[in-house]
Amino acid sequence: MANLIEPRILKGFRDFLPAGEIERRSLVERIEAVFRMYGFVPIDTPALEYAEILLGKGGGETEKQIYRFTDHGGRDVALRFDLTVPFARFVAEHREELPLPFKRYHIAKVWRGENTQRGRYREFTQCDFDILGSESPAADFEILLVMHNTLKALDAGDVTIRMNHRGLFNRFIARLSLQDKSAEVLRTVDKLAKLGRDATEESLRELAGGERAGEILRFIEARGSFEETLETVTGAAGGECPESERLRLIRSFMVDTGIAGSFVLDPSITRGLDYYTGVVFETFLNALPEIGSVCSGGRYDNLAGLYSREKLTGVGSSIGLDRLIAALESLGKAGGRSTYVKAAIVCVDEADGGAYQVLAERFRERGVPCEVFPEAKKLTQQFVLAEKKGAQWVVIPGEKPAESPLTLRELKTRQDRKDLSFEEAAAILSR
Amino acid sequence: MANLIEPRILKGFRDFLPAGEIERRSLVERIEAVFRMYGFVPIDTPALEYAEILLGKGGGETEKQIYRFTDHGGRDVALRFDLTVPFARFVAEHREELPLPFKRYHIAKVWRGENTQRGRYREFTQCDFDILGSESPAADFEILLVMHNTLKALDAGDVTIRMNHRGLFNRFIARLSLQDKSAEVLRTVDKLAKLGRDATEESLRELAGGERAGEILRFIEARGSFEETLETVTGAAGGECPESERLRLIRSFMVDTGIAGSFVLDPSITRGLDYYTGVVFETFLNALPEIGSVCSGGRYDNLAGLYSREKLTGVGSSIGLDRLIAALESLGKAGGRSTYVKAAIVCVDEADGGAYQVLAERFRERGVPCEVFPEAKKLTQQFVLAEKKGAQWVVIPGEKPAESPLTLRELKTRQDRKDLSFEEAAAILSR
Repeated sequence: MANLIEPRILKGFRDFLPAGEIERRSLVERIEAVFRMYGFVPIDTPALEYAEILLGKGGGETEKQIYRFTDHGGRDVALRFDLTVPFARFVAEHREELPLPFKRYHIAKVWRGENTQRGRYREFTQCDFDILGSESPAADFEILLVMHNTLKALDAGDVTIRMNHRGLFNRFIARLSLQDKSAEVLRTVDKLAKLGRDATEESLRELAGGERAGEILRFIEARGSFEETLETVTGAAGGECPESERLRLIRSFMVDTGIAGSFVLDPSITRGLDYYTGVVFETFLNALPEIGSVCSGGRYDNLAGLYSREKLTGVGSSIGLDRLIAALESLGKAGGRSTYVKAAIVCVDEADGGAYQVLAERFRERGVPCEVFPEAKKLTQQFVLAEKKGAQWVVIPGEKPAESPLTLRELKTRQDRKDLSFEEAAAILSR
Repeated sequence: MANLIEPRILKGFRDFLPAGEIERRSLVERIEAVFRMYGFVPIDTPALEYAEILLGKGGGETEKQIYRFTDHGGRDVALRFDLTVPFARFVAEHREELPLPFKRYHIAKVWRGENTQRGRYREFTQCDFDILGSESPAADFEILLVMHNTLKALDAGDVTIRMNHRGLFNRFIARLSLQDKSAEVLRTVDKLAKLGRDATEESLRELAGGERAGEILRFIEARGSFEETLETVTGAAGGECPESERLRLIRSFMVDTGIAGSFVLDPSITRGLDYYTGVVFETFLNALPEIGSVCSGGRYDNLAGLYSREKLTGVGSSIGLDRLIAALESLGKAGGRSTYVKAAIVCVDEADGGAYQVLAERFRERGVPCEVFPEAKKLTQQFVLAEKKGAQWVVIPGEKPAESPLTLRELKTRQDRKDLSFEEAAAILSR
């Protein structure tokens, strides 16, 4: 007998069994429905690209984590590690075909050879949406509105979206004559939630001295209503400026649309990534803030600078689907469905296979998904199977299987409803 | 100024712009809706697997085409080249969690370093569905029914599904004492449509001699009604047998469900793949038969033999999504939609950005997807943009932008409908 190959998958990779995959798809379908309502359109790009494209200037964590190899034609290729870099390449390549502002979404897998000990996956789904080619505060606001309404559609409970403006922070830093160290200050501040106040203060002292460290901490710890905090940080940044005006306008849009209560101006939010230049934001579930941001992003002023001389500004956000699913699970809000069908039609006589499908087609025409069991096993075995598959009802056909009367058995209560006409049965299953 | 990186993608790979991606998603959504109606459930597996798993016994075309490399941990890994092998591994690994019969679908990308000169892509989407763990003819029939109804749902026009039974063919071959050469005969016969009758006859003569070549040709060229052909090939195979009975039963199910007219018994259909053992089938669009089969499959009796000692029989099929899209395009049936929105709300004053979104939200609540333009450009420019994006209507808000009265402009006719109440406008946009 031939040796068997052990069936196993790579560390950090996952199979999705039906219940898990149905849950993921349900989330993605609801997210897409919101995106589409607002005029975002889908694109797709290859999983595999030239390594040169994906690595750009290269270096850093990315280079260590990327799956890179030489293909059959001797090309240096790699699997995409995010959807932003391929989007930048896509925009540079297809610029003439894209009417601006271009509102795209892209939901797809990415791959990173990360350390799996931190609970990270090496294959995961990203879910990005952007408005490219508009500098308007209305574009910033729309991204925030869509973030808010997407999470509402996912039934994730109330959320708090913490936002800030990089430009205000930069003005403040410049006032402290720290503009040369602004990247380091940003990175330090960004780790406040993770490292705690003391460690952050220590790092800031080293960077900027004790007095300025204190001022930075007071700036990023400013708290109050959105309006109060805006006043405090505007003052610290040197008074009214385009950035404070933009935040004030965005705030008025929030009030107009009735979503202001979900937003906090939080000067400690800076997003580590260098390429953000304007508003930045992170989203927390009120019921589970400790899991971190489930949807983050910001405004950038030069998306495709590596591939094009045209400066393309935009604003975008990314939903952390895996984190969100984990959160919904721990909130008891993940589906637990393992089938789409409502009922299974049991098989009494295999010669009647055609008639069972005729009956099933009549239910399906009424919008009731139902499956037909192909084998005439004992009825009790078929009931167990239907229950394992997650159906709620079993249909037991009568003597003329495509016709009435028939019996419906509710699996949970084990109660039979006998002698039903097709119409009566269809009405019950449509509920 | 820094040198730019040329934005380009790998040969055989594709970007999907919004119109193309909307079309692909629309097809996938309609296919999934049918699968779900019949009780098929989705699964997903990693893009990357151990090469040993994917290559199995290895050798042949697969080994040459597969994207294979060594990962960071020194593992020999590869990108999946189909969805069948990962399904076999999945089933062997999760056998205890899968109630049989297990009906799964899997729609995902696969990668093959193929010669792109034949118009082949190196990254493409497969769309597989299977019933695993049932030997019943009802399972064979359900796969055929789902194939038929999926293509109907895609509006691909009438189809012809050509089917055959490998077992009948094997009996016939055994009667000719050619069982030792059955694999070669199958492969030769499978190329009839591609190579033509003369070349096939020539190959068969070499394999089996002139007399038997003639008999084989008569067998595979048997034509008539399904019933007549079944009689002919049953006779040639030695008379009634389980295989002919199975085909007769499946045929009766087709008649019961009213889909018999789309099916042809075609003894020349053998499907080259070794692992099919029962019914086999291919689907052709009546309007475009020359593009070849758009949906094919068959019954197999040992899916996961490489990874498990349990014999898992099943029947399945795979839709060729790329080929189908090409066909729908040449039939003028591909969507050509480039947006999901019905209307764009133009921006007259950027300070009213919140009010425009309030108006848009009211339309969205009525199920009318609409987008808000963020910048107060000239109205004519905004009309052009709306048209480029594919919207049918433009909404021009009035003096109180969140309220009535407002103007609707139909972009195709360039006609304005002025002084509409919100209700009137919503009624028009809902049509």
